[in-house]
Amino acid sequence: MKILFAPIGDPTGYDDVTYSVKGKEYNTNASFLAISQALNIDKVVVYAGLSLCDTNCNDYNCCRNSVTQKVTQKLGNKFDLLIAPNVFSTRFIQKDRKNTLYFNFIYFNSLKILEENKPDEIYIDITHGINYMPLLATDAIRLAVYTYIVENKKNGVNLTIYDSEPVIKPNKGPYTIDNIYSEKITVRQALLSILSPFLSSESKNVIKNKVFKVIYNSLKANSEDVNTSSCNADFIYYIVNALSAGIFLYLILKKSDINNCLNIIDNILRKLSFNNFAVQLKFEDGKVIYDENIPIEISYLHSLLRIASHIAQGNNKISEIHEMAENYSTSDSVKYVILNEIDKIKKEKDKIPNSPTLYAKILGIDSPSVCSADKRNLIAHGGFEQNVTFLWKCGEDICVSYTDGNCNCIGNVEEHLG
Amino acid sequence: MKILFAPIGDPTGYDDVTYSVKGKEYNTNASFLAISQALNIDKVVVYAGLSLCDTNCNDYNCCRNSVTQKVTQKLGNKFDLLIAPNVFSTRFIQKDRKNTLYFNFIYFNSLKILEENKPDEIYIDITHGINYMPLLATDAIRLAVYTYIVENKKNGVNLTIYDSEPVIKPNKGPYTIDNIYSEKITVRQALLSILSPFLSSESKNVIKNKVFKVIYNSLKANSEDVNTSSCNADFIYYIVNALSAGIFLYLILKKSDINNCLNIIDNILRKLSFNNFAVQLKFEDGKVIYDENIPIEISYLHSLLRIASHIAQGNNKISEIHEMAENYSTSDSVKYVILNEIDKIKKEKDKIPNSPTLYAKILGIDSPSVCSADKRNLIAHGGFEQNVTFLWKCGEDICVSYTDGNCNCIGNVEEHLG
Repeated sequence: MKILFAPIGDPTGYDDVTYSVKGKEYNTNASFLAISQALNIDKVVVYAGLSLCDTNCNDYNCCRNSVTQKVTQKLGNKFDLLIAPNVFSTRFIQKDRKNTLYFNFIYFNSLKILEENKPDEIYIDITHGINYMPLLATDAIRLAVYTYIVENKKNGVNLTIYDSEPVIKPNKGPYTIDNIYSEKITVRQALLSILSPFLSSESKNVIKNKVFKVIYNSLKANSEDVNTSSCNADFIYYIVNALSAGIFLYLILKKSDINNCLNIIDNILRKLSFNNFAVQLKFEDGKVIYDENIPIEISYLHSLLRIASHIAQGNNKISEIHEMAENYSTSDSVKYVILNEIDKIKKEKDKIPNSPTLYAKILGIDSPSVCSADKRNLIAHGGFEQNVTFLWKCGEDICVSYTDGNCNCIGNVEEHLG
Repeated sequence: MKILFAPIGDPTGYDDVTYSVKGKEYNTNASFLAISQALNIDKVVVYAGLSLCDTNCNDYNCCRNSVTQKVTQKLGNKFDLLIAPNVFSTRFIQKDRKNTLYFNFIYFNSLKILEENKPDEIYIDITHGINYMPLLATDAIRLAVYTYIVENKKNGVNLTIYDSEPVIKPNKGPYTIDNIYSEKITVRQALLSILSPFLSSESKNVIKNKVFKVIYNSLKANSEDVNTSSCNADFIYYIVNALSAGIFLYLILKKSDINNCLNIIDNILRKLSFNNFAVQLKFEDGKVIYDENIPIEISYLHSLLRIASHIAQGNNKISEIHEMAENYSTSDSVKYVILNEIDKIKKEKDKIPNSPTLYAKILGIDSPSVCSADKRNLIAHGGFEQNVTFLWKCGEDICVSYTDGNCNCIGNVEEHLG
């Protein structure tokens, strides 16, 4: 299945010209229509800006209808049209005077479309985007693609970015459309890209002092009664470090907290859902003000929690952690470390009892320091540190946890992940 | 030191408007001039396109002079002006009809400028870029920034991307300029970003069948007599995998091959050096054709080899590999695995002789399989696999190699890195 995303500016001035794609010529007024024909694209998604809205409009629906009319009159309707909350001049602005809703809107809706359509080939045509659009739309769609790839364990999804030689009137072409980037993305590459923004030196401060403030304010404003106790910057960084070092057991044991946190973030982004757009707009003196603050880090968090939630789906069995290491390690080094540790545990199989028992005890250590892991060993052994890991037989498999139901070492693990 | 990069389109139409940066207002015709004042920028670098060239020109120097005149007449000269080989309409095209020189030019020259100025704060203003410029310039400058950060071990360099609310005539503003991205980049983040393109599933094929063909053709065309035997796609992937898994010893032992390969790639990109621009241009029937094929992967390779060359500078001593693990590991997991292995080696210090001796022998294994590593163990132990690693005392330190001068195991290591 092939999908093409295209951010566009104002189509009013798009003239019929000749585009050349892969040696064939197409006469049309939009480059994405030429690409769609040339590559037999199954679904085309066009992101137009809400600022194309007719100046007479005084509400969102009027704007939406006028943009739809303006675009379809010029470009037809052989595509899905999504209208994004863009900033434009001083006429369309965010109340915080930042430019974040466009990115968040495109990330959130593209991810939904990718999940619904499960493409193997994804294209972006940046030709008709203006100003910040090619950059922000591309980055937002990339983030959605990475999330989709990890969630679907789809190695080798093709992401190609097309651009036409700039069309200058009255020259009718032919203008060559060619890719500026093209790659088959792997799960590892996608995973590392999603983790990357969290590795900045001040990212944790930003998440804590900026992003979570917005999140808590939004919850308060909507008087939503959700448990936020476990959804905070510290928890986010436990997840980041667990994913980075392949400590999958932590994710498995925390899956309900991950899902709870994801739900909170998802509720904020859901306001940007195209089918149910809930961002309030103020129409004042010919200006349109988006009455919402959503930093783009909310999309980063959403993506992180989506993949953490997906990876954490498994059970706390050695065989399933083996699978996770094969599929979701950030490097071969991390993968082989975990596989080595699992082999070591399997060698002790006969000594593993039916009820949760500290790994150190199984190894014959007399007075182990329960719940007192050595940080370096915890990280260097894929999370199977002997003073915090409990093992027991479960059928043919070996089960593993950071608690035996009595003594809970997960707090100690978190200390070292922080 | 603060530096600001700004890609621009045609400045002819830039009118004086009011820009607002961090609450202060500036009356000027270029957003980067407002940012420069507001943030006390030390150096501003403007990337204009060669396609601004006067239509009467018939050679590069005439173009360059006419672009310089056009830009400085409108925007003054309080900045360094670099003229980039952009594609524009069907008037300025590459002979392969692709769009790669702009990216390569901005990567190569930005890296040079970063190295000369050693900034702690780096800004990009995408406001005035048109079409593909904001996307490609941002990506190219990002790659240069990552390379600069690893080469200078500069944790926490600030990269901020600014954009103005789009200026629409005759509205005089004030237009808010704000950042759309901002982060303090760490060495680890930079390293992972540089490795990322090499993790795609078909990247090795592309490097082998597309990129190295261009490289070899370029060498032939210039009848350069360089030894290319060790500079090939296989070697590139040994480097990628060694960096990813923290097998720093491999890089140290291969430093001369790395530098040789870097030199080959650098020679190609050097044609794009602003001070010594050597890409041939054909002026034909009012068209300008760039007579050069340089895929953007050449910049990826250049960046990879630059950081590999930097990291490989050390000596093959345990203490230096310890340092490398602290500074250049792709995850804490990789770092702690290496530190653990080094501790294990140090514990054997008394048994380590003065001449290179196989690690397996030192560990008391009777008939070790010399040069026959187990892949998983090689990767999972930071490269210190007992059947390929030779150790000997050197002063207070311990030296390490994959050869004892007689038996050379580096080929076996490469088999597992491939």
